[in-house]
Amino acid sequence: MKNIESQVISRIDADLLKGFCSNVLIRLGVPKESADIVSDHLIWADLMGISSHGVTRLGIYVKRLQTGLANARPDIRIVRETASMAVLDGDNGLGQVVGTKAIELAIDKASKVGVGVVGVRHTTHFGCAGYYTLKAIEKDMIGIVMSNAPSTMAPWGARVPYLGTNPIAFGIPTRNFPPILLDMATSIVARGKIILAAKEGKSIPEGWAVDPEGEFTTDPESALKGAVLPFGGPKGSGIALMIDIFSGILSGAEFGSHIGSLYDDFSKPQNVGNFMIVFNIDSFCPVDQFKERVEMMRQEIKSLPRAKGVEEILLPGEIEFRKYLENKRSGVLLSPEVIRELKEVGDLLSVKFPLEGEG
Amino acid sequence: MKNIESQVISRIDADLLKGFCSNVLIRLGVPKESADIVSDHLIWADLMGISSHGVTRLGIYVKRLQTGLANARPDIRIVRETASMAVLDGDNGLGQVVGTKAIELAIDKASKVGVGVVGVRHTTHFGCAGYYTLKAIEKDMIGIVMSNAPSTMAPWGARVPYLGTNPIAFGIPTRNFPPILLDMATSIVARGKIILAAKEGKSIPEGWAVDPEGEFTTDPESALKGAVLPFGGPKGSGIALMIDIFSGILSGAEFGSHIGSLYDDFSKPQNVGNFMIVFNIDSFCPVDQFKERVEMMRQEIKSLPRAKGVEEILLPGEIEFRKYLENKRSGVLLSPEVIRELKEVGDLLSVKFPLEGEG
Repeated sequence: MKNIESQVISRIDADLLKGFCSNVLIRLGVPKESADIVSDHLIWADLMGISSHGVTRLGIYVKRLQTGLANARPDIRIVRETASMAVLDGDNGLGQVVGTKAIELAIDKASKVGVGVVGVRHTTHFGCAGYYTLKAIEKDMIGIVMSNAPSTMAPWGARVPYLGTNPIAFGIPTRNFPPILLDMATSIVARGKIILAAKEGKSIPEGWAVDPEGEFTTDPESALKGAVLPFGGPKGSGIALMIDIFSGILSGAEFGSHIGSLYDDFSKPQNVGNFMIVFNIDSFCPVDQFKERVEMMRQEIKSLPRAKGVEEILLPGEIEFRKYLENKRSGVLLSPEVIRELKEVGDLLSVKFPLEGEG
Repeated sequence: MKNIESQVISRIDADLLKGFCSNVLIRLGVPKESADIVSDHLIWADLMGISSHGVTRLGIYVKRLQTGLANARPDIRIVRETASMAVLDGDNGLGQVVGTKAIELAIDKASKVGVGVVGVRHTTHFGCAGYYTLKAIEKDMIGIVMSNAPSTMAPWGARVPYLGTNPIAFGIPTRNFPPILLDMATSIVARGKIILAAKEGKSIPEGWAVDPEGEFTTDPESALKGAVLPFGGPKGSGIALMIDIFSGILSGAEFGSHIGSLYDDFSKPQNVGNFMIVFNIDSFCPVDQFKERVEMMRQEIKSLPRAKGVEEILLPGEIEFRKYLENKRSGVLLSPEVIRELKEVGDLLSVKFPLEGEG
């Protein structure tokens, strides 16, 4: 049944969908400006083809706002500050609202002293790390954005979860579209793909996850009870650990298994931590020279002899920005399941879902 | 023959070996202070068990000093500077001399404004990235140190080298020894291991490297003619690319295949680039609190149920610091081949190798 349903995909105009999401959040007391920030972020993820971080998240944000574990009108405060860094307390606001303030502060500092670093504590799920780096890219700056996340991944050598799939993104401005955007979880694979395999009754490749006994498993149900594994073995595990030390410990948020689950823990706020670094290119070298050399590097890499079976050498973000352009033109792709989720949310809060008339 | 030889390992006192290396460099016009910096670095690598970056490098440094491609008395200049960042021109000095100046400058800036970032251009092979982070750790700061490197690694999707095995290190201060030190190449495996397999006539595991046609190979000779592969597939490849953008393009050094080979190119200086970031912990949160939480994280991770076949869960750097303590006590381990190399260098410059009398 689900398999058949998942074939039927609808397209919806990005602006209509954005308006719907904003109206839902406004209904829950989120100021319009903040609601628009969250909606823009979610729709951007869907446009980029990262639907796991798109409007499918609206429902859980609504639930956490309703229970008061996410704060519709947070008092976001700077608790530590120098010319080049700050620590922000997000007051458990929606992660995108807090994260946007953080990257703007980092950009402001970088514009003045060349480098801006902002650590964030007391925030919630902030969506796609890559989104924030775009704000830096727009100003001809480089952004590095990372976050810790609820515990689902086993550190190298362990068989149970402790770390999150802690994401990190690097955004590099370029002369020609698209920018270079490396936006990655530190797990081998997004946990969402294992959830999908479970729903569809498919097996998963060996090496993605371990069962609760720590044995590699190809059964997605066992994998979900066990732990996902870091990308690149001990190296990827080490990078996930570093992201947690920066985002959790240095920024003063929770870390490791102490971070509250987004979906399963309604006893406390998540207390996720973020860490953002912005470099003002012009402080290091002329921006034109930087972009010219990045373009040269891009052309050189794309012209290299290709490995067997590879049709085109792709730089980080290239596929996603192609999808972005197409979806921007043709509409956001939504599965029937996500449409049903959104309609439910809309019905609950008396906000009309824009596809309803056409569905 | 080589297999038998490689069984016979000698130990030598670290200080004696350090004195020898310094004397060799001084003979080539390197000031004593700079010679001691390089020697300390090389012996540290050997003590940590990272012998690929230890005194075995002395011979090539000597050769590059003799040809003038490395500068014994560089005029290291700050070419760009703000309160929180700088760009250093290393004037083709020995990488350890330039790198040590760079990390000291980054630490100085971090002590004043919380964050210090230094990009380096016109430098040469700088050894172990992790070594520099120790300077930050000593001051209760966090260090991130990276460098680009001569082209030996295929970017994801390509079958020929373009990127180097660009290393990155993260050093985290802790309350109890050892600090957490993640020091890694972005290739699956150090190229030195493939060279060793070739010498010993052994095969290498599939997935380490491709042959010149881009096919996976288990033959180390074909691998050395082909390319090593990034760790963690496209993600590791992306990280290696970012390291090159920071170290090469942003810092104004060479990048990609334009970097001069350490061993094979005597037509020009290497023009390697480095990039170093230092965070002053005290600017973000109380140092005691930071260290207490890192210790808690360490204990929690080490107590996790272990994966099958794992005797102990190790944090980054733990094995290396154990070796360090043992080698510091018992002497640096040197293979007969490295002893022969060092004796040759010593004979060439009339510096007596300290093991000679006992050998």
